Amino acid sequence: MLQRSSITASEEERQAFYEELKQQSMWPLWADQGNPNGEPKSGVLPFVWHWRDIRPQAMRATKLVGTKEALRRVLCLANPGLDGRSGSTRTLSANIQIVMPGEIARAHHHNIAALRFIIEASGGYTVVDGDIIPMAPGDLILTPNWAYHDHANDSDAPAIWLDGLDVPLVRGLEIAFQEEFPEETQPIGEVADLSLAKYGTGGLRPAWETQTRPHSPLTHFPWSEVKPALDRIAAVASGSAYDGIILEYTNPATGGPVMPTIGCYAQLLRPRQHTESHRHTSSTVYHVVEGEGYTLVDGQRLDWESKDVFVVPAWAHHEHVNLSQGQPAYLFSFSEAPALRALDLYREEPSAP
Amino acid sequence: MLQRSSITASEEERQAFYEELKQQSMWPLWADQGNPNGEPKSGVLPFVWHWRDIRPQAMRATKLVGTKEALRRVLCLANPGLDGRSGSTRTLSANIQIVMPGEIARAHHHNIAALRFIIEASGGYTVVDGDIIPMAPGDLILTPNWAYHDHANDSDAPAIWLDGLDVPLVRGLEIAFQEEFPEETQPIGEVADLSLAKYGTGGLRPAWETQTRPHSPLTHFPWSEVKPALDRIAAVASGSAYDGIILEYTNPATGGPVMPTIGCYAQLLRPRQHTESHRHTSSTVYHVVEGEGYTLVDGQRLDWESKDVFVVPAWAHHEHVNLSQGQPAYLFSFSEAPALRALDLYREEPSAP
Amino acid sequence: MLQRSSITASEEERQAFYEELKQQSMWPLWADQGNPNGEPKSGVLPFVWHWRDIRPQAMRATKLVGTKEALRRVLCLANPGLDGRSGSTRTLSANIQIVMPGEIARAHHHNIAALRFIIEASGGYTVVDGDIIPMAPGDLILTPNWAYHDHANDSDAPAIWLDGLDVPLVRGLEIAFQEEFPEETQPIGEVADLSLAKYGTGGLRPAWETQTRPHSPLTHFPWSEVKPALDRIAAVASGSAYDGIILEYTNPATGGPVMPTIGCYAQLLRPRQHTESHRHTSSTVYHVVEGEGYTLVDGQRLDWESKDVFVVPAWAHHEHVNLSQGQPAYLFSFSEAPALRALDLYREEPSAP
Amino acid sequence: MLQRSSITASEEERQAFYEELKQQSMWPLWADQGNPNGEPKSGVLPFVWHWRDIRPQAMRATKLVGTKEALRRVLCLANPGLDGRSGSTRTLSANIQIVMPGEIARAHHHNIAALRFIIEASGGYTVVDGDIIPMAPGDLILTPNWAYHDHANDSDAPAIWLDGLDVPLVRGLEIAFQEEFPEETQPIGEVADLSLAKYGTGGLRPAWETQTRPHSPLTHFPWSEVKPALDRIAAVASGSAYDGIILEYTNPATGGPVMPTIGCYAQLLRPRQHTESHRHTSSTVYHVVEGEGYTLVDGQRLDWESKDVFVVPAWAHHEHVNLSQGQPAYLFSFSEAPALRALDLYREEPSAP
Repeated sequence: MLQRSSITASEEERQAFYEELKQQSMWPLWADQGNPNGEPKSGVLPFVWHWRDIRPQAMRATKLVGTKEALRRVLCLANPGLDGRSGSTRTLSANIQIVMPGEIARAHHHNIAALRFIIEASGGYTVVDGDIIPMAPGDLILTPNWAYHDHANDSDAPAIWLDGLDVPLVRGLEIAFQEEFPEETQPIGEVADLSLAKYGTGGLRPAWETQTRPHSPLTHFPWSEVKPALDRIAAVASGSAYDGIILEYTNPATGGPVMPTIGCYAQLLRPRQHTESHRHTSSTVYHVVEGEGYTLVDGQRLDWESKDVFVVPAWAHHEHVNLSQGQPAYLFSFSEAPALRALDLYREEPSAP
Repeated sequence: MLQRSSITASEEERQAFYEELKQQSMWPLWADQGNPNGEPKSGVLPFVWHWRDIRPQAMRATKLVGTKEALRRVLCLANPGLDGRSGSTRTLSANIQIVMPGEIARAHHHNIAALRFIIEASGGYTVVDGDIIPMAPGDLILTPNWAYHDHANDSDAPAIWLDGLDVPLVRGLEIAFQEEFPEETQPIGEVADLSLAKYGTGGLRPAWETQTRPHSPLTHFPWSEVKPALDRIAAVASGSAYDGIILEYTNPATGGPVMPTIGCYAQLLRPRQHTESHRHTSSTVYHVVEGEGYTLVDGQRLDWESKDVFVVPAWAHHEHVNLSQGQPAYLFSFSEAPALRALDLYREEPSAP
Repeated sequence: MLQRSSITASEEERQAFYEELKQQSMWPLWADQGNPNGEPKSGVLPFVWHWRDIRPQAMRATKLVGTKEALRRVLCLANPGLDGRSGSTRTLSANIQIVMPGEIARAHHHNIAALRFIIEASGGYTVVDGDIIPMAPGDLILTPNWAYHDHANDSDAPAIWLDGLDVPLVRGLEIAFQEEFPEETQPIGEVADLSLAKYGTGGLRPAWETQTRPHSPLTHFPWSEVKPALDRIAAVASGSAYDGIILEYTNPATGGPVMPTIGCYAQLLRPRQHTESHRHTSSTVYHVVEGEGYTLVDGQRLDWESKDVFVVPAWAHHEHVNLSQGQPAYLFSFSEAPALRALDLYREEPSAP
Repeated sequence: MLQRSSITASEEERQAFYEELKQQSMWPLWADQGNPNGEPKSGVLPFVWHWRDIRPQAMRATKLVGTKEALRRVLCLANPGLDGRSGSTRTLSANIQIVMPGEIARAHHHNIAALRFIIEASGGYTVVDGDIIPMAPGDLILTPNWAYHDHANDSDAPAIWLDGLDVPLVRGLEIAFQEEFPEETQPIGEVADLSLAKYGTGGLRPAWETQTRPHSPLTHFPWSEVKPALDRIAAVASGSAYDGIILEYTNPATGGPVMPTIGCYAQLLRPRQHTESHRHTSSTVYHVVEGEGYTLVDGQRLDWESKDVFVVPAWAHHEHVNLSQGQPAYLFSFSEAPALRALDLYREEPSAP
């Protein structure tokens, strides 16, 4: 009869065996088998970086390095649960970048995908593959995998934004490529914001163009369009039990996520809304565009207010609360959900009541 | 050696054979072989229906039948090259529908896909699967395959629109289904124009909804958004050599055509623009939203002005001319190109110079 | 209050109006409205062509025309419900082709998609885009849209096969293209049956090749593999209630249908099997590879035996019966189901009990 | 004029700033900027595990632990460039599993995707979601993400196989799930090898089944079919300049990779073949089914013979040499290329000459 076998051996014999295996670059799986009924537990910690802490440090950085010394003047928001110089989660980096009046950040490209969510700006722009994209607070600008990009600030106030990247994912695979553009800045066309003119209107596409790249041809999503859309839907729909009115930014050529590795979302929580709790295998970085409230993450309360950044680890239960009696809260967020879906690794479930 | 064979037989013998075959429901292909190097030549004729002819007849129809007698008070624009009661092309019907103040056209659905392009209206609406969609001139409203729809006019002026349908295609396959809604009208929600609120903003989708139907969840495309989009792009891009600035209306869930069988397009021709000539296997119905000009179709000149309707047959060379010195011309059009692409039957080529 | 309106007009007035419309290439839809709760009823009739009738006529044709006179020596199986020279259904042509020892049928291509199902052959081959494909009884050979093909018989017996084509579909759209190859025959490579060598083994594909055409790169499906597959599955699975063990021939590059417009199927009915009845919007041409039985189509009994050809119209109820006590029956069939699915026009339902 | 700015600060000031940032879970990107024109360099080392080393240790393990003590009696092949207990590459684990006569390895499932490539067996089987799959040397058996599986050996000789898994990828994301089956073994049907019967024949699929899972419904690929396929193609095609005759195992429902994260390949190198060199961002684990030769990896020679296992790191130049004068060499391999393609992170280039 077929059955599981049991063998008695001394711990000494086994250790001798293990030692010998080690010399041959092998090791015994059973010695490190873990829980046979395991659920994931991320080392990533729920955490908030408050704007009141971030902004002064960003300003201080402008006194200490120029964009010549720092190709990118960027403060990385490092998850306290990870090694000091890792990302904000296992897959994502959330960084704060500041460009001062008169400065540029030189042109380069990389196969790391990135997004820029503008926090403060009264001018300034990013050039994405030759398309000059003006910055205004709340705007989302994509600099997808291998798109050349440089930043400039032609206004008289600092430009500060949230960078979102898939650095830990790509670095973890050890396949990160990066190249400087031959010049400091890219040549720019006569026309600004071309992607927005061509692809920014709902339900319409230039019939003479064919899109074959796996990321969105639309690279600028102005807050002046996103916020009214959230408000409009909030007036007529109840939205998600877990997220309120939540819109995914999409690639208009496919209806899918803006980039293969990173999904972006804009979210409205109604005054006093307290959402239901759920969890999913994707991790999420949130940025508070406007409002104040808190998010319960595996029982831990993360209080947030305008311009704060916080993370919810993978597979952590979470629910959101808008503390305002009269004003909606607006959140922007990004996650690696599209990557997990493509790999059949995305799961989601309501928290047990 | 293998070769083509030649056999001598009397015409008499052959005819006797053919006659016998006929009795057995067979026939000899070689007796009807046609040109071995054939290109298609459609029986469909280039043709214009002028608004100055259409409108008076539509008004006259309102004196002769009610929407009780005529489930749909519709004048069909029948291609003069086809049998009198066929469509406007081999695949498409272009019809004119009129609903008078106080009238309704009762609810039903069919697997024929349809679109409505509003020509005159100062009110009135179509209900599409419970969503009440207000009509304004230039608006496109979809009533896709199997969506329940009814029309109503609560204004004090006639509502007149262009119907576009794939009637000849579906009827030709002998698989048309139609069903009346149990009541004369559908129940409607509290909210009007829900599809537009949820899916009408460029590059955003409600993250809590999943689309599985093969047609657009967005069923209302207001001219108040389409026209500015055309103007905006005309200011920054040259567009198509054959069509000027031409936008395809898209299904925001896929980036593809609004319905599997019918593609819809909005087009701007610059003042005095004369496009290059090309041809394709899809046939096209055009409606002039605004402007005056002409289209050369296989050498035949079709002069058009505002609100006219005209057809370009499959595989006919065609080029467009805007006769205005100072104003753009705006055309709406629809074709079966998506169906042909899905069947690998779409071809396109520039006309020889 | 909004409601359907009723208008009284004399029949005379209406007819005068209709007459005037006719002059303007318009007609009133309501005059021809049909059943508002309509289900399709095809003009196509259920019909069997018996091999005992087909074969003598095919042989007789070889006495009356050569392949010089008849580019294709083909007897078309014309549905008796349609105009005498139309197809076997609204979308499909089923034809019988015969090539005699020493003969060739010259090379050409067309955007009509075709398949060849071999009935009799002890040699002979078809060349498909340079790939020489040997014929054996029961083999399926594809000559997809725009693939050059010529046939030759280097054996000492007639080669007879069933041609399946989408002629009525493409001709109905008036977009059929055809071109002769510059020479009578195509140059052929050193290697025969290359597509089978490269793509014929289950679950494997040449990793150095990329397929971008919308049809199968595998163009030869030998009966010597299909029949054992049917037998193997019949031993372990019950299959479809409506069709017994039914396998779809697939495009190994996509897992989908072999060609965008035509799906092909091989089917085994167990001894004495009587399937349940259903109907679908696709029409089907059947060929009996081996066996005897009958098919009930909308109550009409079509008796069939080996090598017969029969059609089931669109939306007709049908069920199959294998009359043998001890032998399976093997059917080959083809239909336009892939085209209907692509256009969201496919429906299927069990017959009411 | 906009330009890069330069700011002078003392190293001391900067370090003080960095220290303060650290307290706030932030760090300055510019302090760790790396090469602005970077290409990836994997920490993974080219390495061979020889069968002559592996087999004795596997046999020794059977003396030291039973399948009760070791849920899986598995020796992990740990890349010497990585931390001692990591995988064989950054994404893949290659392990050796041994099940002795009379033993079972109990049923469980996990969202880690796995494959089994049989090295030695004269019986034994794996049960995959109730389908009992017999093992023979050279067979590939899939146990995809979340499929229940247990192993058993009902023969009188050891069963030894190569396990391939995406452990480092899924563990790296911290989202690994695992669950034991309620019983030690799964109930099994009357029929063995059902997936092979239904999906194993080229170009055919059971028409009554619909596949919606993202992995292959075919989970058994017998070497008795793969080897002849390689030989057959080698007789008629030259194959890839870099890999000789290389076949990808495919999901017959899609034509794509067998699992979303892992691609599998079988490869034939002709006698004395020396392939050209190339590199790609995917890493590869090779297993020598039969033959002897070597692979040059970034200039390092990895000599291999039958049953050895070796790895080629991501972005490493590599070329293969079959040292036999008269016999082909047969390699099996697996890589994470499908995952990288889905994330737009796959790149490939020929090595500079």
